[in-house]
Amino acid sequence: MPNSHTLHQTLSLDDIRSVSPAMADYTEKAIVGDLWKRPMLTARDRCVITLSALIARNQTISMPHYVKLALDNSVLPAEISEIITHLAFYCGWPNAYFAVEIIKDIFTERGIGAERLPAAVPELLPLDEPSEFRRAAAVEANFGEISAGVVHYTGELLFKNLWLRPDLAPRDRSLVTVSALIATGQVAQITYHLGRAMDNGLTREQASEALTQLAFYCGWPCVFSAMPVVKDVFASRQN
Amino acid sequence: MPNSHTLHQTLSLDDIRSVSPAMADYTEKAIVGDLWKRPMLTARDRCVITLSALIARNQTISMPHYVKLALDNSVLPAEISEIITHLAFYCGWPNAYFAVEIIKDIFTERGIGAERLPAAVPELLPLDEPSEFRRAAAVEANFGEISAGVVHYTGELLFKNLWLRPDLAPRDRSLVTVSALIATGQVAQITYHLGRAMDNGLTREQASEALTQLAFYCGWPCVFSAMPVVKDVFASRQN
Amino acid sequence: MPNSHTLHQTLSLDDIRSVSPAMADYTEKAIVGDLWKRPMLTARDRCVITLSALIARNQTISMPHYVKLALDNSVLPAEISEIITHLAFYCGWPNAYFAVEIIKDIFTERGIGAERLPAAVPELLPLDEPSEFRRAAAVEANFGEISAGVVHYTGELLFKNLWLRPDLAPRDRSLVTVSALIATGQVAQITYHLGRAMDNGLTREQASEALTQLAFYCGWPCVFSAMPVVKDVFASRQN
Repeated sequence: MPNSHTLHQTLSLDDIRSVSPAMADYTEKAIVGDLWKRPMLTARDRCVITLSALIARNQTISMPHYVKLALDNSVLPAEISEIITHLAFYCGWPNAYFAVEIIKDIFTERGIGAERLPAAVPELLPLDEPSEFRRAAAVEANFGEISAGVVHYTGELLFKNLWLRPDLAPRDRSLVTVSALIATGQVAQITYHLGRAMDNGLTREQASEALTQLAFYCGWPCVFSAMPVVKDVFASRQN
Repeated sequence: MPNSHTLHQTLSLDDIRSVSPAMADYTEKAIVGDLWKRPMLTARDRCVITLSALIARNQTISMPHYVKLALDNSVLPAEISEIITHLAFYCGWPNAYFAVEIIKDIFTERGIGAERLPAAVPELLPLDEPSEFRRAAAVEANFGEISAGVVHYTGELLFKNLWLRPDLAPRDRSLVTVSALIATGQVAQITYHLGRAMDNGLTREQASEALTQLAFYCGWPCVFSAMPVVKDVFASRQN
Repeated sequence: MPNSHTLHQTLSLDDIRSVSPAMADYTEKAIVGDLWKRPMLTARDRCVITLSALIARNQTISMPHYVKLALDNSVLPAEISEIITHLAFYCGWPNAYFAVEIIKDIFTERGIGAERLPAAVPELLPLDEPSEFRRAAAVEANFGEISAGVVHYTGELLFKNLWLRPDLAPRDRSLVTVSALIATGQVAQITYHLGRAMDNGLTREQASEALTQLAFYCGWPCVFSAMPVVKDVFASRQN
């Protein structure tokens, strides 16, 4: 199977050094030796953020390493499954397919079978009806006449279904969403989702450090374009 | 040829289920069983929109399936050829190359040869000279001193050549363009091209449903970032 | 090694013609026969711009050709190494990895070893302290409370280290950065970096022609979204 083999290959530090000794050095000292050890985020959260960014940007070359790192840092297979499902909606189906292609073989290698994955149609978390009513009414008023289809599926599939699936905590689902938005330059959508993330328990310090993590994995410009919006969200909140 | 083999491989529903039973379920029920059956767009138009989005985002993993689906839904080989050529200009040459790599083998498999493809230099559709004069004058006034090269090629290669090639109807060419703009987050370019699309015969209902289609294939944020601009275009027009 | 083989393959003009005779024709006449011969930029600069755009957009399919073209047009191996390192920071680590995967084999084929690559930790160019003090103070004031981590690494790793590495001239480093920003739609970051590029010696004519080059390799919308910002930068400067 050349395909799986191809996609699963990861560069060694020597490969990197053979093109850029500097990059190998930054990887060892700045990323592995410093960034990942900063205490403002757990290694588990860093894995969730990084994996979300990789899936959002189709970075297949780095996925095998970070999927394994996630599993080694207490991200459950069921959570990885939900992260992919979630990002199918937030980055598009094909992005999720690229991730499936890689992760299916890692799950096989580690003996992770269906019994450790979320049910297709599980019992959902309870819906916060007043909050969803307000969200739906605002979107309907704004875009109901622009795309009734989008408005329909946003309610039925996303907020009354996907977000209520129990195998990824709402706070983590928000962290995945915000990471993907920053990673793909979707600045206009950050305000709503960062607010929701903080309502779901993401702290200011964690959001702040997520930006630091994403700078290395998505590039400085993504983060600098996001920071003014993050600043406005922080300024608008008590917590 | 590991290359072709690699890129042509498509995930099975069982592959998807082995990582996310939920995603397999959404694919069957929401996308195949519901979205594609909505009557506001033909299956042919959905194929054009989806294929444009995939090419715009280098989603090679999903291309074989949707190229075949397009051929099975009355998108002519000559039209697929023109879609790729069009997107070379609207997404960059390398995006078109990724598509060529995959589609050349599908054309070979289906016995589609040069005689069914558009001529390199065909007789062009007639130019709407007053309209092109206004477009060219506006761009020259705005950007002539910023990049004379861009202004030059925009007229000579795009509006006086590419857009007049006869093997893809102007309305379809516009649908391809608008789909690619939404798929790549090029919000600032939607106003002009959606207006042009509607001048070329794309209806409000079709544009609205194109957003619905794109939500699944490019992710919700792309569509939510586009909707305010679509709203403004709709508000500015009689039709 | 199916992987390297896969990624190194480049389409032939006949492959392109088998899907789009038009695209083969545009490639020969407009790009090879016209664009690359325009005198406003050297072939070397066009290689730097194109390679930066390809890395910024993970366009692996076109990289082998343009890496070789760059080496054949006086871009030094040490400069290619620095371009990749630079773009690790400006596009994210995984983008650099995709480039490493391809370039390592080209370096091997051409016998380019460690002795022709920049040191991991070289003697740095002198820091323009007043300028860096102003930059750091502005970023600290703006974003110090939003992400202390981003602000910290921006100073320590980027402006007091990466930008001072001696094997890529500051003017070229700026050209790489601006090309990547335009290629990835990071419009909000162009103002600062285009100004810096022109401070570093990039002329107005070169910046203008870089837009022309990028139109073909990243698509017209990227360039049209960038031009209003470029216009503002040009208007704000004497040179």
